[in-house]
Amino acid sequence: MNPEPFLQLDRVIHEKGRLALMSLLAATDELSFTDLRDTLGMSDGNLMSHVRTLQEAGYVAVTKSFRESRPLTTCSLTKSGRAAFVTYIGLLEQIVAQTKQR
Amino acid sequence: MNPEPFLQLDRVIHEKGRLALMSLLAATDELSFTDLRDTLGMSDGNLMSHVRTLQEAGYVAVTKSFRESRPLTTCSLTKSGRAAFVTYIGLLEQIVAQTKQR
Repeated sequence: MNPEPFLQLDRVIHEKGRLALMSLLAATDELSFTDLRDTLGMSDGNLMSHVRTLQEAGYVAVTKSFRESRPLTTCSLTKSGRAAFVTYIGLLEQIVAQTKQR
Repeated sequence: MNPEPFLQLDRVIHEKGRLALMSLLAATDELSFTDLRDTLGMSDGNLMSHVRTLQEAGYVAVTKSFRESRPLTTCSLTKSGRAAFVTYIGLLEQIVAQTKQR
Protein backbone atom coordinates (compact mmCIF):
# COMPACT_ATOMS: atom_id res chain seq x y z
CA MET A 1 0.00 0.00 0.00
CA ASN A 2 1.16 3.48 -0.83
CA PRO A 3 0.57 5.78 2.18
CA GLU A 4 1.10 8.94 0.10
CA PRO A 5 -2.56 9.71 -0.75
CA PHE A 6 -3.50 9.46 2.94
CA LEU A 7 -0.78 11.83 4.02
CA GLN A 8 -1.82 14.34 1.37
CA LEU A 9 -5.48 14.53 2.42
CA ASP A 10 -6.29 18.16 3.23
CA ARG A 11 -7.38 18.25 6.89
CA VAL A 12 -9.50 21.34 6.30
CA ILE A 13 -11.67 19.42 3.83
CA HIS A 14 -11.35 15.96 5.41
CA GLU A 15 -13.50 16.75 8.49
CA LYS A 16 -16.79 15.13 7.52
CA GLY A 17 -19.07 18.13 8.12
CA ARG A 18 -16.81 20.32 5.98
CA LEU A 19 -16.52 17.60 3.35
CA ALA A 20 -20.33 17.54 3.03
CA LEU A 21 -20.40 21.35 2.92
CA MET A 22 -17.69 21.57 0.23
CA SER A 23 -19.45 18.87 -1.82
CA LEU A 24 -22.74 20.76 -1.70
CA LEU A 25 -21.04 23.98 -2.77
CA ALA A 26 -19.05 22.20 -5.48
CA ALA A 27 -22.33 21.11 -7.08
CA THR A 28 -23.57 24.65 -7.57
CA ASP A 29 -22.61 28.33 -7.87
CA GLU A 30 -23.78 29.43 -4.45
CA LEU A 31 -26.11 28.37 -1.65
CA SER A 32 -27.79 30.32 1.12
CA PHE A 33 -26.71 29.73 4.67
CA THR A 34 -30.28 28.53 5.41
CA ASP A 35 -30.27 25.99 2.58
CA LEU A 36 -26.89 24.65 3.67
CA ARG A 37 -27.99 24.37 7.26
CA ASP A 38 -31.22 22.58 6.40
CA THR A 39 -29.66 20.19 3.86
CA LEU A 40 -26.82 19.28 6.19
CA GLY A 41 -29.01 19.15 9.31
CA MET A 42 -26.47 21.26 11.21
CA SER A 43 -27.08 23.82 13.93
CA ASP A 44 -26.42 27.47 13.02
CA GLY A 45 -23.37 27.48 15.30
CA ASN A 46 -21.92 24.31 13.86
CA LEU A 47 -22.37 25.45 10.26
CA MET A 48 -20.99 28.89 11.09
CA SER A 49 -17.88 27.39 12.65
CA HIS A 50 -17.22 25.15 9.61
CA VAL A 51 -17.83 28.04 7.20
CA ARG A 52 -15.37 30.16 9.16
CA THR A 53 -12.68 27.47 8.96
CA LEU A 54 -13.22 27.17 5.21
CA GLN A 55 -13.19 30.93 4.83
CA GLU A 56 -9.90 31.19 6.72
CA ALA A 57 -8.41 28.58 4.40
CA GLY A 58 -9.55 30.70 1.46
CA TYR A 59 -11.88 27.94 0.20
CA VAL A 60 -15.27 29.58 0.72
CA ALA A 61 -16.53 33.11 0.09
CA VAL A 62 -19.43 34.51 2.12
CA THR A 63 -21.67 37.22 0.66
CA LYS A 64 -24.21 39.20 2.63
CA SER A 65 -27.03 40.84 0.69
CA PHE A 66 -30.76 41.52 0.89
CA ARG A 67 -33.63 39.71 -0.76
CA GLU A 68 -37.13 41.17 -0.36
CA SER A 69 -35.63 43.48 2.26
CA ARG A 70 -34.47 40.52 4.37
CA PRO A 71 -30.79 39.81 4.92
CA LEU A 72 -29.47 36.89 2.91
CA THR A 73 -26.13 35.17 3.49
CA THR A 74 -24.79 33.02 0.69
CA CYS A 75 -21.69 30.85 0.44
CA SER A 76 -19.75 29.77 -2.61
CA LEU A 77 -16.49 28.00 -3.36
CA THR A 78 -13.58 30.21 -4.31
CA LYS A 79 -11.39 29.22 -7.23
CA SER A 80 -8.78 27.81 -4.84
CA GLY A 81 -11.52 26.04 -2.85
CA ARG A 82 -12.73 24.33 -6.01
CA ALA A 83 -9.17 23.32 -6.92
CA ALA A 84 -8.50 21.96 -3.42
CA PHE A 85 -11.76 20.00 -3.55
CA VAL A 86 -10.88 18.44 -6.92
CA THR A 87 -7.47 17.41 -5.54
CA TYR A 88 -9.08 15.99 -2.41
CA ILE A 89 -11.62 13.91 -4.38
CA GLY A 90 -8.81 12.66 -6.61
CA LEU A 91 -6.99 11.38 -3.51
CA LEU A 92 -10.16 9.65 -2.24
CA GLU A 93 -10.42 8.00 -5.64
CA GLN A 94 -6.84 6.71 -5.34
CA ILE A 95 -7.55 5.40 -1.84
CA VAL A 96 -10.67 3.57 -2.99
CA ALA A 97 -8.86 2.20 -6.07
CA GLN A 98 -5.88 0.93 -4.08
CA THR A 99 -8.24 -0.80 -1.65
CA LYS A 100 -10.30 -2.39 -4.40
CA GLN A 101 -7.36 -3.68 -6.43
CA ARG A 102 -6.47 -6.22 -3.79
CA MET B 1 -26.43 16.05 -3.51
CA ASN B 2 -27.29 13.36 -1.02
CA PRO B 3 -25.67 14.17 2.37
CA GLU B 4 -26.34 10.66 3.71
CA PRO B 5 -22.93 9.06 2.87
CA PHE B 6 -21.12 11.95 4.60
CA LEU B 7 -23.15 11.61 7.77
CA GLN B 8 -22.54 7.87 7.86
CA LEU B 9 -18.72 8.11 7.68
CA ASP B 10 -17.29 6.37 10.74
CA ARG B 11 -15.30 8.99 12.67
CA VAL B 12 -13.02 6.33 14.16
CA ILE B 13 -11.83 5.36 10.67
CA HIS B 14 -12.15 8.78 9.02
CA GLU B 15 -9.21 10.39 10.86
CA LYS B 16 -6.50 10.25 8.21
CA GLY B 17 -3.80 8.55 10.28
CA ARG B 18 -6.23 5.81 11.30
CA LEU B 19 -7.52 5.52 7.75
CA ALA B 20 -3.98 4.84 6.54
CA LEU B 21 -3.47 2.36 9.38
CA MET B 22 -6.71 0.50 8.68
CA SER B 23 -5.88 0.39 4.95
CA LEU B 24 -2.48 -1.13 5.63
CA LEU B 25 -3.99 -3.76 7.92
CA ALA B 26 -6.82 -4.48 5.48
CA ALA B 27 -4.21 -5.43 2.85
CA THR B 28 -2.71 -8.19 4.97
CA ASP B 29 -3.24 -10.59 7.87
CA GLU B 30 -1.09 -8.80 10.41
CA LEU B 31 1.72 -6.28 10.64
CA SER B 32 4.28 -5.59 13.32
CA PHE B 33 4.08 -2.33 15.22
CA THR B 34 7.53 -1.47 13.83
CA ASP B 35 6.50 -2.05 10.21
CA LEU B 36 3.35 0.04 10.68
CA ARG B 37 5.32 2.85 12.30
CA ASP B 38 7.97 2.90 9.57
CA THR B 39 5.52 2.65 6.65
CA LEU B 40 3.28 5.37 8.04
CA GLY B 41 6.15 7.58 9.19
CA MET B 42 4.49 8.03 12.59
CA SER B 43 6.09 8.44 15.98
CA ASP B 44 5.68 5.54 18.44
CA GLY B 45 3.35 7.67 20.56
CA ASN B 46 1.19 8.72 17.64
CA LEU B 47 0.84 5.18 16.31
CA MET B 48 0.15 3.84 19.80
CA SER B 49 -2.61 6.37 20.34
CA HIS B 50 -4.31 5.52 17.03
CA VAL B 51 -3.97 1.79 17.68
CA ARG B 52 -5.56 2.27 21.10
CA THR B 53 -8.53 4.14 19.60
CA LEU B 54 -9.01 1.37 17.03
CA GLN B 55 -8.67 -1.28 19.72
CA GLU B 56 -11.30 0.42 21.86
CA ALA B 57 -13.65 0.48 18.88
CA GLY B 58 -13.05 -3.26 18.50
CA TYR B 59 -11.49 -2.81 15.04
CA VAL B 60 -7.91 -3.85 15.74
CA ALA B 61 -6.43 -6.69 17.77
CA VAL B 62 -2.95 -6.38 19.28
CA THR B 63 -0.84 -9.48 19.94
CA LYS B 64 2.35 -9.53 21.95
CA SER B 65 4.75 -12.40 21.36
CA PHE B 66 8.45 -13.15 21.05
CA ARG B 67 10.55 -13.65 17.95
CA GLU B 68 14.16 -14.71 18.41
CA SER B 69 13.69 -13.92 22.12
CA ARG B 70 12.78 -10.31 21.36
CA PRO B 71 9.31 -8.97 22.09
CA LEU B 72 7.16 -8.51 18.99
CA THR B 73 3.90 -6.57 18.88
CA THR B 74 1.63 -7.22 15.92
CA CYS B 75 -1.67 -5.66 14.90
CA SER B 76 -4.45 -7.11 12.79
CA LEU B 77 -7.99 -6.15 11.84
CA THR B 78 -10.75 -7.90 13.74
CA LYS B 79 -13.74 -9.25 11.83
CA SER B 80 -15.76 -6.20 12.80
CA GLY B 81 -12.87 -3.90 11.89
CA ARG B 82 -12.73 -5.41 8.43
CA ALA B 83 -16.50 -5.05 8.03
CA ALA B 84 -16.41 -1.41 9.20
CA PHE B 85 -13.57 -0.68 6.78
CA VAL B 86 -15.48 -2.20 3.84
CA THR B 87 -18.51 -0.06 4.73
CA TYR B 88 -16.34 3.04 5.05
CA ILE B 89 -14.66 2.51 1.65
CA GLY B 90 -18.10 1.93 0.10
CA LEU B 91 -19.20 5.34 1.42
CA LEU B 92 -16.06 7.01 -0.01
CA GLU B 93 -16.88 5.41 -3.33
CA GLN B 94 -20.40 6.89 -3.23
CA ILE B 95 -18.97 10.31 -2.37
CA VAL B 96 -16.51 10.20 -5.25
CA ALA B 97 -19.21 8.91 -7.64
CA GLN B 98 -21.70 11.60 -6.70
CA THR B 99 -19.04 14.26 -7.21
CA LYS B 100 -17.95 12.87 -10.57
CA GLN B 101 -21.46 12.52 -12.00
CA ARG B 102 -21.92 16.27 -12.21
